[in-house]
Amino acid sequence: MMYAAILAGGSGTRLWPRSRQQQPKQFADITGAGRTLIQSTADRLQGLVPDDQLFVVVGQSFAHLAADQLPALGPPQIIIEPSGRNTAPAIGLACVHLYHRDPDAVVAFLPADHVIPDTAGFQAALRCAVDAAEAGHLVTLGITPTFAHTGYGYIKRGAMLPISTPQPIYTVERFLEKPNLATAETFLADGGYYWNGGIFISRADQMLAEIERQLPEVYSRLQQIMAALDHPDASSVLAEVWHAMPNISIDYGVMEGARQVAMTPLDAGWNDVGSWDALASVIPLNEEQNYIAQGETLTINSQGNIIYSERFVALIGVNDLAIIDTGDALLIGHKSQMQKVKDVVEHLRRQGRTELL
Amino acid sequence: MMYAAILAGGSGTRLWPRSRQQQPKQFADITGAGRTLIQSTADRLQGLVPDDQLFVVVGQSFAHLAADQLPALGPPQIIIEPSGRNTAPAIGLACVHLYHRDPDAVVAFLPADHVIPDTAGFQAALRCAVDAAEAGHLVTLGITPTFAHTGYGYIKRGAMLPISTPQPIYTVERFLEKPNLATAETFLADGGYYWNGGIFISRADQMLAEIERQLPEVYSRLQQIMAALDHPDASSVLAEVWHAMPNISIDYGVMEGARQVAMTPLDAGWNDVGSWDALASVIPLNEEQNYIAQGETLTINSQGNIIYSERFVALIGVNDLAIIDTGDALLIGHKSQMQKVKDVVEHLRRQGRTELL
Repeated sequence: MMYAAILAGGSGTRLWPRSRQQQPKQFADITGAGRTLIQSTADRLQGLVPDDQLFVVVGQSFAHLAADQLPALGPPQIIIEPSGRNTAPAIGLACVHLYHRDPDAVVAFLPADHVIPDTAGFQAALRCAVDAAEAGHLVTLGITPTFAHTGYGYIKRGAMLPISTPQPIYTVERFLEKPNLATAETFLADGGYYWNGGIFISRADQMLAEIERQLPEVYSRLQQIMAALDHPDASSVLAEVWHAMPNISIDYGVMEGARQVAMTPLDAGWNDVGSWDALASVIPLNEEQNYIAQGETLTINSQGNIIYSERFVALIGVNDLAIIDTGDALLIGHKSQMQKVKDVVEHLRRQGRTELL
Repeated sequence: MMYAAILAGGSGTRLWPRSRQQQPKQFADITGAGRTLIQSTADRLQGLVPDDQLFVVVGQSFAHLAADQLPALGPPQIIIEPSGRNTAPAIGLACVHLYHRDPDAVVAFLPADHVIPDTAGFQAALRCAVDAAEAGHLVTLGITPTFAHTGYGYIKRGAMLPISTPQPIYTVERFLEKPNLATAETFLADGGYYWNGGIFISRADQMLAEIERQLPEVYSRLQQIMAALDHPDASSVLAEVWHAMPNISIDYGVMEGARQVAMTPLDAGWNDVGSWDALASVIPLNEEQNYIAQGETLTINSQGNIIYSERFVALIGVNDLAIIDTGDALLIGHKSQMQKVKDVVEHLRRQGRTELL
């Protein structure tokens, strides 16, 4: 049976000032779609994963946001991480719950903060990945790259596997770290490389077996959590065990060294909205050649700007800016420098301006 | 005896969105001085004009703002214009009140929305102008030009007058319309030309006599208003008479054709804040090379920006912008194009967006 586990633990400071400590980007409507990113992530599964097979892994302090924003999910479907320990423990925790419920569970692990405009394309890729996972593979979706991005890890595909699905399933020859530009360009020219978007599909038991083999420390703690699941002290066991849980990513800790790893391409407009300039890829240009995520705007001699505002905005003679205007903070930056938002956040942190973080 | 009449009738749409129909720029703290422009105009007279010799001419709908912002003024010192009829009737109305109170009144007519950083220099020029006015001249302050501005009228000075004051008094050879750039450059190179800043000083009776001679229609109405001043029906007479008052400027209607016109230079950093980019002339650059009128800011790779904000502002990689951020509207423009703010206001007017005007 197919399940989905949405990983909603990120903090998303790169989308400050809309993404805040109290409301990270996955719980915000960043694209102006009328739905938050986590809601869109759940929407994207409709017709493929029934509501009662959809789970969320989330930190304690955001559990209420997840519950509010995904009212179709019952309390047992909101899996609490006591603290952030990166993706390997989070995925392990989801596997514990799902394996406990259904020893044959096949699970799609999906970051909560991605934008994927082509839902049909996404579901088609996911269906193939599930078939491959049922055939015994740890599957990752390889994002078809659109340019020589240096901010992502890459996946080099290997031979095509003899699994009969509508789109090809490949072995993974190698996971590659973030490349420099020249290397990224050779990847793009080659055609056999994909972005690692952090979307994985596998049987719960197989993922747990890989964690046992490669991360025994994580595994033994997951076992303790699973053993206590039906007991009254489940949450105190979780709290105690989690405290010493190692912090490690699923890529580094499991996928890179896993057996039976496979991939299938995803070419559906995927974007992880890693900074404000990424909105230009997921919002259409309006008639005046600007990208309006939110806000009423009047633009004069102004093009290529990204606008996210809670009030009326007038632009005169400015181009290629990202303008993010929230109740208590205003960010204006050139689109090419939006990665420096982290410096703003760091400055506010140093100054103790927690009300703005 | 010396009086001052502050002319506070303007609407100031060029400083939208801080300047609004309900609160024109003269009633706003545009420069971040902690005082509104009209308050600074009154402050600038301290030590020269006693509070009870200070008057304001203002429209009915802004009388409460004037009274609130200048609490030292009693009700008779707030002179109401029933509607805007330009500067000749406004100055005439002030003369009516002041001549009625003191037939020897000498009056400085001062726009409420100018910035003049050097108060001592301003007062020195004004003292000399008052001496010349007492000697029988209609005096204007000629602003020493700092560049070839094409947005102002100019004054060509004539011969020096034999009036013994600390700074020279000249006859006015000519008032000149706004020049084109080439002409403005010749004015600047010549050295004998000044900006017409709209600051005038004269005896009230002499100004009224010039209005009588040159604008008899205006004068006859002013006479009716004066005749009713002490009567119970003063305000109904004013309302009725004002309705048909011609709309005409003091420059065109009186000064250009007046006898005994004189000028003395004002070189005190005068600025009429005609658009947001003018703030760069009246606010010092901060250490990060930006002009902060109001607002807490963090600037990264950003220089030459003018910021007026009610919230925290972060700039990344942007230069030479004017950023005006109020409760319900945000304006971002390149400093070189801020005169287009009037197009924004016009657009809002056409759309019936009165709440933003």
